Amino acid sequence: MAAQRMVVVGGDATGMSAASQARRLKDEDELEIVAFERGGFASYSACGIPYWVGGQVAGPDELIARTPEAHRERGIDLRLRTEVTELDLAGQRVRARDLASGEERWWGFDRLVLATGATPVRPPLPGIDAPGVHGVQTLDDGRALLRTLEAVEGGPDGRRAVVVGAGYIGVEMAEALIRRGFRVTVLNRAGQPMSTLDPDMGRLVHEAMCDLGIETVNGAAVTAVLTGADGSVRAVATEDAEYPADVVVLGVGVRPATGLARAAGLPLGEYGGLLTDLSMRVRGEENVWAGGDCVEVLDLVSGRTRHIPLGTHANKHGQVIGSNAAGGYATFPGVVGTAVSKVCDLEIARTGLLERQAAQVGLRFEAVTIESTSRAGYYPQAQPMRVKMLAERRTGRLLGVQIVGREGAGKRVDIAAVALTAGLTVDQMTALDLGYAPPFSPVWDPVLVAARKAAAAVRKAG
Amino acid sequence: MAAQRMVVVGGDATGMSAASQARRLKDEDELEIVAFERGGFASYSACGIPYWVGGQVAGPDELIARTPEAHRERGIDLRLRTEVTELDLAGQRVRARDLASGEERWWGFDRLVLATGATPVRPPLPGIDAPGVHGVQTLDDGRALLRTLEAVEGGPDGRRAVVVGAGYIGVEMAEALIRRGFRVTVLNRAGQPMSTLDPDMGRLVHEAMCDLGIETVNGAAVTAVLTGADGSVRAVATEDAEYPADVVVLGVGVRPATGLARAAGLPLGEYGGLLTDLSMRVRGEENVWAGGDCVEVLDLVSGRTRHIPLGTHANKHGQVIGSNAAGGYATFPGVVGTAVSKVCDLEIARTGLLERQAAQVGLRFEAVTIESTSRAGYYPQAQPMRVKMLAERRTGRLLGVQIVGREGAGKRVDIAAVALTAGLTVDQMTALDLGYAPPFSPVWDPVLVAARKAAAAVRKAG
Repeated sequence: MAAQRMVVVGGDATGMSAASQARRLKDEDELEIVAFERGGFASYSACGIPYWVGGQVAGPDELIARTPEAHRERGIDLRLRTEVTELDLAGQRVRARDLASGEERWWGFDRLVLATGATPVRPPLPGIDAPGVHGVQTLDDGRALLRTLEAVEGGPDGRRAVVVGAGYIGVEMAEALIRRGFRVTVLNRAGQPMSTLDPDMGRLVHEAMCDLGIETVNGAAVTAVLTGADGSVRAVATEDAEYPADVVVLGVGVRPATGLARAAGLPLGEYGGLLTDLSMRVRGEENVWAGGDCVEVLDLVSGRTRHIPLGTHANKHGQVIGSNAAGGYATFPGVVGTAVSKVCDLEIARTGLLERQAAQVGLRFEAVTIESTSRAGYYPQAQPMRVKMLAERRTGRLLGVQIVGREGAGKRVDIAAVALTAGLTVDQMTALDLGYAPPFSPVWDPVLVAARKAAAAVRKAG
Repeated sequence: MAAQRMVVVGGDATGMSAASQARRLKDEDELEIVAFERGGFASYSACGIPYWVGGQVAGPDELIARTPEAHRERGIDLRLRTEVTELDLAGQRVRARDLASGEERWWGFDRLVLATGATPVRPPLPGIDAPGVHGVQTLDDGRALLRTLEAVEGGPDGRRAVVVGAGYIGVEMAEALIRRGFRVTVLNRAGQPMSTLDPDMGRLVHEAMCDLGIETVNGAAVTAVLTGADGSVRAVATEDAEYPADVVVLGVGVRPATGLARAAGLPLGEYGGLLTDLSMRVRGEENVWAGGDCVEVLDLVSGRTRHIPLGTHANKHGQVIGSNAAGGYATFPGVVGTAVSKVCDLEIARTGLLERQAAQVGLRFEAVTIESTSRAGYYPQAQPMRVKMLAERRTGRLLGVQIVGREGAGKRVDIAAVALTAGLTVDQMTALDLGYAPPFSPVWDPVLVAARKAAAAVRKAG
């Protein structure tokens, strides 16, 4: 029997994890694997780009988990700078173009993996394509931004950067630019930074950014990128003001890159991401799988699908897809919406639902907030930490947790992530046997303090 | 109706938490609360003593959570240096002696709380009571040890300390004494330090202690404390050698202080701790509760009772007892055996069962160990971390996790603590939505890597 062929569209986390996992299960005699990647890199950590730009990571090579050569040695035919331009599902083939030569050909497949990722949102504003305006989605983007930063001479006020957007990418890039010696202004359309938090918790991030010397303008709707005589960016305009800029970084989110899938008639969800079943197979398809930033995932807390572009999900999807596409069995049950981030030493974490998300899906809840410390109060470097917790009325089921603090705050959210997965109530959480010693926690861990307060609120509400 | 009286025996974490919680629920007209404490301090963090001795915490006042005056202002009649010498359960009264005056009297009770704590094991060796030999159980102990440390002049080899025992207290005290400028030898009867870990993980602690300049002698059975001409300690003898010592610290564990309870005929478990029901009421009693270091607790993983003296349990017990004794309702469902500790920058954590504990209760299991890092490998200060995981054969249920590493290792054990509480399988754990960003974790958190390996081992074992 001739080998079957698995075709992978997209050579980053999901695509190459799927290819690697399939190769672990099937030899080359049984399964040929061809992976197409439009860009010049594969298997890299896009999440690491802000730290490369910030100088904590020396170069792009460190962000590459496995080189193209290593993939090829393992029998994966990885083709860089090769773009898939069409899916012919009925014919079980894809058309791919070598971007260097322009040559196109069809490739038949027995199994298809769609891992096309996401595309940064680029608002259709005047000047948005001017030199000096950068996204930070790919290693190529990171390299281009670094070239710009090095070329900026700056004026009498120093070198000035404007970051558009105050989500994860926005705040991480603000820190990176501060580290590079730029004066940084963050223009944020929402009322507080980090719209992945409730506004009362986002306010803490705003305050911390001010303390770090990052100017954050909330409620700022950008209307244009203004350019100078040489055509390069010179400022960003909002409805109310102009902000001088030698460089502009866009961090206004991403959208699933599902143009090919849409053209092929595959099912998309309300955020434009592919819809899959629990085995990551595209709904209604027999031999097509999809994962990573181009799919929507089931949110186990709300019961809805959401688009959550995150490297950790992308890697899990790849593992699951590789197993299933190679005849094994694995599932991805869904997410609970965990995310963690930092700006300088401020750690920001959330899991589960925000207040507005809970309300949107018809849940009634109690929300409580507590202040505690990362270590026993008497232990050196005990740092303040704020924990917000949402619990469903009546049942007391945990619905979400948000944490803002310093060292030791961020990963504490994992306690709540596991509790959400297990469907624990906040009352059950008050008895959790969490690690305690003075250098690690107060005798009541901050998460336990929040759980006690939430349980009391649920009881009181009746 | 006259107020009822609640009598509390023992004024530390459990006793005073119970008193405080009961006072929150009942006014003084309804409930009189009398608390007897043999020592000179109440409501303090015994867990903080090693850090006071080590100099990270300035003085004992910082370890006191609430002063006696503050308790009295809230209507709790706290009597320090007053020892309860007898329980008369049939007569609903206790006899208490004022240690200063020697005066004794009976106090009637309607509700009784036993929070008598634990007593350090003091092996019956020649010389064990010599000046210079110290326990570190109470603030009084800490003060006495500090006086000795300050008085030691030391010989040509500097000032030398011997720590007997290499459990939590032993390693924390070794660090404290290194910080005070002592040369430190730890004499450990077992084959590796930290018998709360499996030996293969304990070996990592041994290696780290060597690197810190702490001499650790494993398999060392102490036979005598040797004294000099002035009667003070001069060395510790084992079967094989003598270890010069200007000061000796005992860290060989504690036993439930249940002499009064035993004399009163209350039920004790195999470790000598009081046995309670889920409401922390002593089994077979209507109006007697017990908690903290003097009770045994249900281990939810093994189904057995264990003696786990730990401040965080003691505080939870106090809350539960106070609620129930004041007519409310709360339960303590049990523990999963979580503990976290550190020696200098080495973090040591465990939860659930060790290999020998699992085997003892009839469980068959797969054990796997993985190496990973605290942050993305390319991120600055990514530190190595070793995670060992036990999963039950067939079911794949998580049985235990041990972690040894540097910053970020210790509290990761909480992920497993919650998973154990919820009864998750290691296969379920592979899909956990844990916080990921390069400064916080590799894209596969070390706990997920261990879960994947454990799930594969369970599948393979069939």
